[in-house]
Amino acid sequence: MPLANRAVAEFIGTFWLVLGGCGSAVLAAAFPNVGIGLLGVSFAFGLTVLTMAYAIGHISGCHLNPAVSVGLVVGGRFNASDLIPYIVAQVLGAIVAAAALYFIASGKAGFDLSSGFAANGYAEHSPGGYSLVAGLVTEVIMTFMFLIIILGATDQRAPSGFAPIAIGLGLTLIHLISIPITNTSVNPARSTGPALIMGGWALTQLWLFWVAPLMGAVLGGLVYRWLGTTK
Amino acid sequence: MPLANRAVAEFIGTFWLVLGGCGSAVLAAAFPNVGIGLLGVSFAFGLTVLTMAYAIGHISGCHLNPAVSVGLVVGGRFNASDLIPYIVAQVLGAIVAAAALYFIASGKAGFDLSSGFAANGYAEHSPGGYSLVAGLVTEVIMTFMFLIIILGATDQRAPSGFAPIAIGLGLTLIHLISIPITNTSVNPARSTGPALIMGGWALTQLWLFWVAPLMGAVLGGLVYRWLGTTK
Amino acid sequence: MPLANRAVAEFIGTFWLVLGGCGSAVLAAAFPNVGIGLLGVSFAFGLTVLTMAYAIGHISGCHLNPAVSVGLVVGGRFNASDLIPYIVAQVLGAIVAAAALYFIASGKAGFDLSSGFAANGYAEHSPGGYSLVAGLVTEVIMTFMFLIIILGATDQRAPSGFAPIAIGLGLTLIHLISIPITNTSVNPARSTGPALIMGGWALTQLWLFWVAPLMGAVLGGLVYRWLGTTK
Amino acid sequence: MPLANRAVAEFIGTFWLVLGGCGSAVLAAAFPNVGIGLLGVSFAFGLTVLTMAYAIGHISGCHLNPAVSVGLVVGGRFNASDLIPYIVAQVLGAIVAAAALYFIASGKAGFDLSSGFAANGYAEHSPGGYSLVAGLVTEVIMTFMFLIIILGATDQRAPSGFAPIAIGLGLTLIHLISIPITNTSVNPARSTGPALIMGGWALTQLWLFWVAPLMGAVLGGLVYRWLGTTK
Repeated sequence: MPLANRAVAEFIGTFWLVLGGCGSAVLAAAFPNVGIGLLGVSFAFGLTVLTMAYAIGHISGCHLNPAVSVGLVVGGRFNASDLIPYIVAQVLGAIVAAAALYFIASGKAGFDLSSGFAANGYAEHSPGGYSLVAGLVTEVIMTFMFLIIILGATDQRAPSGFAPIAIGLGLTLIHLISIPITNTSVNPARSTGPALIMGGWALTQLWLFWVAPLMGAVLGGLVYRWLGTTK
Repeated sequence: MPLANRAVAEFIGTFWLVLGGCGSAVLAAAFPNVGIGLLGVSFAFGLTVLTMAYAIGHISGCHLNPAVSVGLVVGGRFNASDLIPYIVAQVLGAIVAAAALYFIASGKAGFDLSSGFAANGYAEHSPGGYSLVAGLVTEVIMTFMFLIIILGATDQRAPSGFAPIAIGLGLTLIHLISIPITNTSVNPARSTGPALIMGGWALTQLWLFWVAPLMGAVLGGLVYRWLGTTK
Repeated sequence: MPLANRAVAEFIGTFWLVLGGCGSAVLAAAFPNVGIGLLGVSFAFGLTVLTMAYAIGHISGCHLNPAVSVGLVVGGRFNASDLIPYIVAQVLGAIVAAAALYFIASGKAGFDLSSGFAANGYAEHSPGGYSLVAGLVTEVIMTFMFLIIILGATDQRAPSGFAPIAIGLGLTLIHLISIPITNTSVNPARSTGPALIMGGWALTQLWLFWVAPLMGAVLGGLVYRWLGTTK
Repeated sequence: MPLANRAVAEFIGTFWLVLGGCGSAVLAAAFPNVGIGLLGVSFAFGLTVLTMAYAIGHISGCHLNPAVSVGLVVGGRFNASDLIPYIVAQVLGAIVAAAALYFIASGKAGFDLSSGFAANGYAEHSPGGYSLVAGLVTEVIMTFMFLIIILGATDQRAPSGFAPIAIGLGLTLIHLISIPITNTSVNPARSTGPALIMGGWALTQLWLFWVAPLMGAVLGGLVYRWLGTTK
């Protein structure tokens, strides 16, 4: 596929991940009486990846996440020379999604950013009040396991065609565990979009949601590279 | 397949989409203490499409939605000459479903239409109080992404057999995001059935749920046509 | 497969359907604060069928339901001469499951049958207070659609291997719509087990949950037989 | 595959099962207002197995559970000589996961173990107050059915590639039924990790969560061995 098509696919896919995941959190999670809760938000994030992996997997590989792209390079599945355009497309898609979500959410009288706009945070900005260290460790482990799932499910020895289910529902699972800790990132692009809208503390804490997912992804790439090799 | 079989399949399938999706909303969403909430309604809508896509996909293609049929024409996957019978069958199925749901719901003493009968609306009839513009933008974007998912997941290069999962759970995801905005349409037939039962404001606002999904679907057809073409 | 293996498989599978579906309702639906609600019960019923269809589909076909067995005969997919042993095995499995569930549920001090033990009912025994006619119509339509899903998803032209997902999640969907009406049967065996434990009104109302599902299943068999035939 | 790779895969997979399943329970189940509840915890446990089965199934078979390994030996699918290293790797993975979860959960001011740290228990330590006998019977039946699902879905006559879905969602179903009884084990390794952190009653009651799952698994292996044999 030409790089232009692949970059546009990554842009659209990451747009969908942030609009769908953060959108469900901002618009529907706490809807009175019948809100979808953190369970609904977890499914929303996972289903953005599941749907896009079937829709554009054959175009761009459907990374939608700078940490995934880096982990795939480390795992020997993606060409480092395409890393920059992929990450640029992903971050742009996330920013446009956050802007679109802000536009939609502002269509309700009385909307403001005080509920956090689904930005990631730690310590006093952790949804459940978890420390920086807890957030860092959680993000590293979650992204590490995400890469193990991605590299394993797309291994040529794994059943063909099922990887989008494993990877999408894997992201759902990651959210079921870790939203209370950091609002769950495992994806620097997803963190950057809402942080730019929020500004302030969200930008100040954004570094962690680049550093920890990238660390976890590199580790995951290295471990699966060893794990999946028979000799 | 003969057109008669295909039209009957579209009728049954759209009947199921409206009876299942709107039925779960009207009957079960706010059931005391153990109601299924917006998360359950989102799964119900998505599972109507997932189940029908496996059951009648090989008969009619399982569009169940005028916007999908139009988007598939624009995307080069469906013959424009079949558009009218498909849309007629879909709208009829939706109307019969709304009537059946009204009959069942009326079997409970004290039932009335004051809770909205799952009709779509904006501004003062948006579930969460979102403006006309927010509703319009949301419906365009959601239907646009729905067509990207449909055209991508049924692309010959995508894994075979999984499209019903991607498309059905894609509709679930769309509902997880946008029920608070418009009660979620992305489907003019689905909107028409309950609006005819409700009358009044639901009919007055029905235009938006034809215009916006059709706009989104045409855009989705055009974009995927470019995206999926290598040359 | 020998009939003995097939009958034992149907016994085990229907045991699982009733223990899992009714068990989740009796034990977990209304658990304080974190109960699974009707959404969880709907998933439980559907997942009993999904799991068994993969586990014993190749042994017995995994009907687990007299209405399904009858509908498959009408639809031309099952031999009428095997109908009686299948139905006997299904009803026995359901009865043993209800007894096992009663034994487990009684392990909690203060347990009694006043919450209904997941029995099906109408009118004053409908969970939401729906009339006999509403219950009858709902059970006919739901079983009709269940058979359309089953016959369609197992059609040779449908994607191979996915039928358990469509059928299992189809049963989930049916519960998402209709638990408030009748507690959802669409399966005379599932209704018979708890009714025998409950006695009283549950036995008096049991006729409807044999008549309506069988009517719907016969209709579904006839309609799909026409729908799926090209000539 | 070399035994070292397989053992490490079992270690990582069981780590994920305990961190994900117990983690969702400890961190997110009772989160104020938008907590994931027992339904979310049930999905989390199931999705750890679904994701790992696609990720490492081709490396180690993805047992993640001493009862499963034993049941597979009885069912004729796994070599008894590999049993000890598998069980050691599983128990170690579970212990490390429980320690990691304790570290993360402690990152919140005021955290203590009074809510049970997702340990399994009966009688006064059953979440719903169910007796030792009810717990024992439930764990035996649930593990028995888990092995039927595992052996059936991985039978050569079952559709290829779908077993992780059936097995993972089967574990979800088992949790939907039985969390109120014992907090659901069906897995001695999963029980051992949190019990070592909790100490006290959790260690005293740990015997049941080795005995009952192993009994159920042996029975399941024997029954499927007969059920799946045509001659």
